[in-house]
Amino acid sequence: MTLLETTIQAIVPSDQSARAQATARLERLTMPHWALGRLLDLAVDLASMTSSLRPAVERKTVVTMAADHGVVAQGVSAYPQEVTMQMVANIVNGGAGINALARQAGARVVVVDMGVAGDLRPLIESGRLFSKRIGPGTRNMAAGPAMTREEAVRAVEAGIEVALELGPSTDIFGTGEMGIGNTTPSSAIVAALSGARPVEVAGRGTGLDDAALERKVEQLTAILELNRVDPDDPIDVLSKVGGFEIGGIAGLILGAASLRKPVLVDGFVSTAGALIAQRLCRRSADYMIAAHLSLERGHRIALGLLGKRPLLDLEMRLGEGTGAALAMNLVEAAVNVMTQVATFEEAAVSEASA
Amino acid sequence: MTLLETTIQAIVPSDQSARAQATARLERLTMPHWALGRLLDLAVDLASMTSSLRPAVERKTVVTMAADHGVVAQGVSAYPQEVTMQMVANIVNGGAGINALARQAGARVVVVDMGVAGDLRPLIESGRLFSKRIGPGTRNMAAGPAMTREEAVRAVEAGIEVALELGPSTDIFGTGEMGIGNTTPSSAIVAALSGARPVEVAGRGTGLDDAALERKVEQLTAILELNRVDPDDPIDVLSKVGGFEIGGIAGLILGAASLRKPVLVDGFVSTAGALIAQRLCRRSADYMIAAHLSLERGHRIALGLLGKRPLLDLEMRLGEGTGAALAMNLVEAAVNVMTQVATFEEAAVSEASA
Repeated sequence: MTLLETTIQAIVPSDQSARAQATARLERLTMPHWALGRLLDLAVDLASMTSSLRPAVERKTVVTMAADHGVVAQGVSAYPQEVTMQMVANIVNGGAGINALARQAGARVVVVDMGVAGDLRPLIESGRLFSKRIGPGTRNMAAGPAMTREEAVRAVEAGIEVALELGPSTDIFGTGEMGIGNTTPSSAIVAALSGARPVEVAGRGTGLDDAALERKVEQLTAILELNRVDPDDPIDVLSKVGGFEIGGIAGLILGAASLRKPVLVDGFVSTAGALIAQRLCRRSADYMIAAHLSLERGHRIALGLLGKRPLLDLEMRLGEGTGAALAMNLVEAAVNVMTQVATFEEAAVSEASA
Repeated sequence: MTLLETTIQAIVPSDQSARAQATARLERLTMPHWALGRLLDLAVDLASMTSSLRPAVERKTVVTMAADHGVVAQGVSAYPQEVTMQMVANIVNGGAGINALARQAGARVVVVDMGVAGDLRPLIESGRLFSKRIGPGTRNMAAGPAMTREEAVRAVEAGIEVALELGPSTDIFGTGEMGIGNTTPSSAIVAALSGARPVEVAGRGTGLDDAALERKVEQLTAILELNRVDPDDPIDVLSKVGGFEIGGIAGLILGAASLRKPVLVDGFVSTAGALIAQRLCRRSADYMIAAHLSLERGHRIALGLLGKRPLLDLEMRLGEGTGAALAMNLVEAAVNVMTQVATFEEAAVSEASA
C-alpha cells in the first residue's frame, strides 16, 4: 500500500466514550450549566480526539507550507511571485506575522518548501527550512492541469511525512501557508467541491481592487471550464486546480489525524486543503478545529462544506497560520477548564433549583 | 475634591499622535494592508491608551468584584444567595473558571468583597481576599432603592482605590464579578440608560427557564416603575437599581483610565459597570476594550451604548472575568504584532503593485 493509503486506513473515528465522559465532567463544574459555551464544546472535542480527559496540548507546532503558482501569470495577485520566496525567508528569520503570534501562543513554526519558484537551498542547508519540494511551482492552470496526478499524491504524502516527522514532538498542529496567488486555486477547489459559482467564492486575496477581483472571477470561470474536475475525485481536483502547499496541508491533516492529534485549520487556503483531506477520508474531519473566519469571501462556504464553526472572527486574511496560532490559546484555555475547574462536589458549592 | 472627582479630572483622552504613529507602522508590516484586521485595530487602540508603540501588557490583573443583591428575594435567580460566598471561596482557592482561564493567560486574579451577605473574615484575614465592603448586600430594589447615594459613591470610590492599589503592579486590568442575582440590576441599568424595554435586555442569567425569565421581566418592569431613575445621573441609576460590585467595576475602570492603563471589560454585568463609568466620564471609554459578547440577551444593546465591538463571541455567560482573561491573549498577540513583525523595508520584501 502507498503511504496515503496506509495513513487513511490508520485514521479512526474520534472517541465517543471520552466525549461522553468529558461532557459528564464539564456538566458538574462549579458554574451554571455549560456557561463557558463553545470553550466547553472545544474541550469535549479535544477529549474525543485524544481519548483523554487531560488532552496534551502543550507542544504546539504551526506548519507553514510554501509554494508558488503558475496561475499568477494571469494577473490574479496584487503581489509579484518573488514575494513567496522573500516571505519564506522572513518567516524563517522570525519577522513575519506568524512568528509574532506563534511566540505569543508558545508554538514552534516549521516552514516547508513544497515548491517555491526560487533557490531556497541556503535556508534548507542551514536546517531552518524543511524541503518537500515537488517542483518549482505549479503550472498555469488557465492552460491545463496545475500538476500531474502523481505530483498531487506526492504533495499529500509529503504533508503526511511532515506530520509523522513532527508528531513525536508535537501535541497539537496548526496549518499555515505562504504562496502568492494561492487564493485562486483555493477558490477553484471550493467552487468545484461546493458547486458555488466563482463570484461567490473568489475574494480579494492579498488586496485586489474591484476590477482585478472581476478579472479573477473571469479567470476562475475559465479555469473550471477548461479543467473539468471530477468533484468526487479529490486527487483530480487537487491536481487540476490545486497547489503543492494545499496538497501538503491536506497531507499534514491526514497525518495528524492518523496520530490522533488535533489540527487547527487556519484560513481560506488551509480550509481548501482541509476539504481535500476530508474528501480523501471523512473521518479526518474529527481531528480538525476551524481556527477563525477569514475575511476572504469563500471561507464561509468552505467551512460550511467542512461542517465546522470557526472559533475566532477578527477580520483577518493573512494566512501563514496566524489564525491557527491565535486559536491555540483557546485550545489551551479549554483544556485548563476541563482539568482545573472544581466540580460542585469538590468545591462544596450549592446547585441550582430544578 | 472627592476621590471620584479627582479621578475623573485625571482622565485624559487617549493619545491621537501615538495612534497615528502606530497606524503608520502597522501599514508598513510585511503583510497585505491591514491583513490582521481587528488585531491591528486593537494594537492601535493600545498604543493610544498607553502613548507607546511598545505598550506594556505583561502584568495582567483580573479583578473579580463580589457582592450580594436584595432583589434575589423576588426569585430572580436559579441559585441560592449563599452561592456568592461559596464561589468567592472557590475563586480564592483557585478552583473556578476564572482561575483556569487566568492561569492560561498569565494573569493574577484579585477577588474583592464589595458586600457579600456572609462572613468572609477568615479569607480577608488570610490576605487572600480584598475587603471593600459597603454592606451585607444591597436592599431589595423591588421595594425601594438598592442603596443610598452615599453607598453608590463609596462603591465607585472603592473600585478606584483597588485600581490605584494594584496599578503599580499591573499593566492591564480585566473586570470580573460574582454575585447571585446580578444580571437583574445589570438589566435594569441597561434598560434605564438605553430606553430599551425589560424584555429586550433581560436574559436567563445563571439559567432561568422560560417561566422564570418571564417573571424576571415582570420584576424588572415593576422595579423601573417604582424607582424612577434619572438616566442623566449615573449615581442615581447605580444607587436605585445597581449593585455594590457594579459600582466597584465602574470605579476600577475609572481608576485604570486615570492611570492610562487598558481595561478589558468582561460580559454583561461588567458592561453595566462600564456604562456607569462612561456616564460619569465619557473619556474613560477610551481605555475600555470589550472582551467578548455574552450570551446574556441585553449584552449587545449594552455594548452598543458603550460604542464597543467585542473581540470574542464564544457563547459564554459565566462572568467572573472569564471573557476578559481569554481576551488578554489577543491583547498580547496584538502587541507582539506591533513590536515583532518586520516592515517591508526591514525584511526587503517586495510590495503590491498600485
